[in-house]
Amino acid sequence: MIGNLNHVAIAVPDLGAATAKYRDLLGAKVSEPKDEPDHGVRVVFVELPNTKIELLEPLDENSPINGFLAKNPDGGIHHLCFEVDDITAASKKLSAESVRILGGGEPKIGAHGKPVLFLHPKDFCATLIELEQA
Amino acid sequence: MIGNLNHVAIAVPDLGAATAKYRDLLGAKVSEPKDEPDHGVRVVFVELPNTKIELLEPLDENSPINGFLAKNPDGGIHHLCFEVDDITAASKKLSAESVRILGGGEPKIGAHGKPVLFLHPKDFCATLIELEQA
Repeated sequence: MIGNLNHVAIAVPDLGAATAKYRDLLGAKVSEPKDEPDHGVRVVFVELPNTKIELLEPLDENSPINGFLAKNPDGGIHHLCFEVDDITAASKKLSAESVRILGGGEPKIGAHGKPVLFLHPKDFCATLIELEQA
Repeated sequence: MIGNLNHVAIAVPDLGAATAKYRDLLGAKVSEPKDEPDHGVRVVFVELPNTKIELLEPLDENSPINGFLAKNPDGGIHHLCFEVDDITAASKKLSAESVRILGGGEPKIGAHGKPVLFLHPKDFCATLIELEQA
């Protein structure tokens, strides 16, 4: 079912400092920061040849990553995103296997403008997994 | 400097259960488990088209991932591994920039038989980063 690893998301308390580390210390190609007001985050893409890292900073006090940063003030790896061909079929299959989907089983439009859903970490090796329709 | 994301390593308390989730729920191609006695882990590779996930279980009481699992009993994402062309040059550059390299600056032979080093998470967005010579 899953295809490519679309991205690894890392929540950080200071997007500028994190971007500088990837750009200046690891020599990676990084994007300009982009606000995603619908998702409560400001994002920088670290572009690797085979996938990307998304550095996420909260955009405001309602950001969905604030809870994670309260528990992990220095930041950390927040989720992995895998591509699937058919998100509705994926949702049905996983729900039938008793994997909990956050916010209900209905896919939502994610930060890349494509339908996504998130699996409950307690049902998946304590890893928050996003599935995105490719 | 960095190239491909070689793998995402996820530490798990039960390798069989974690493998079944990736294989049966996400439909991923998974390898047979492999013991890595020199590194204290048993590994299953989840093979994606563009990279891989490595599921790691401790092999014995001296495993380097025991501490992580003591803090995270349900497991979690342990590290990211990026490829570099020249690990010695990478080590020198990072040391010169005051990034701490675990176990000293000298690369060691990693689980894939190639020279690797690990960066101190406190110097890198609270993410444990492995660099592997490609």
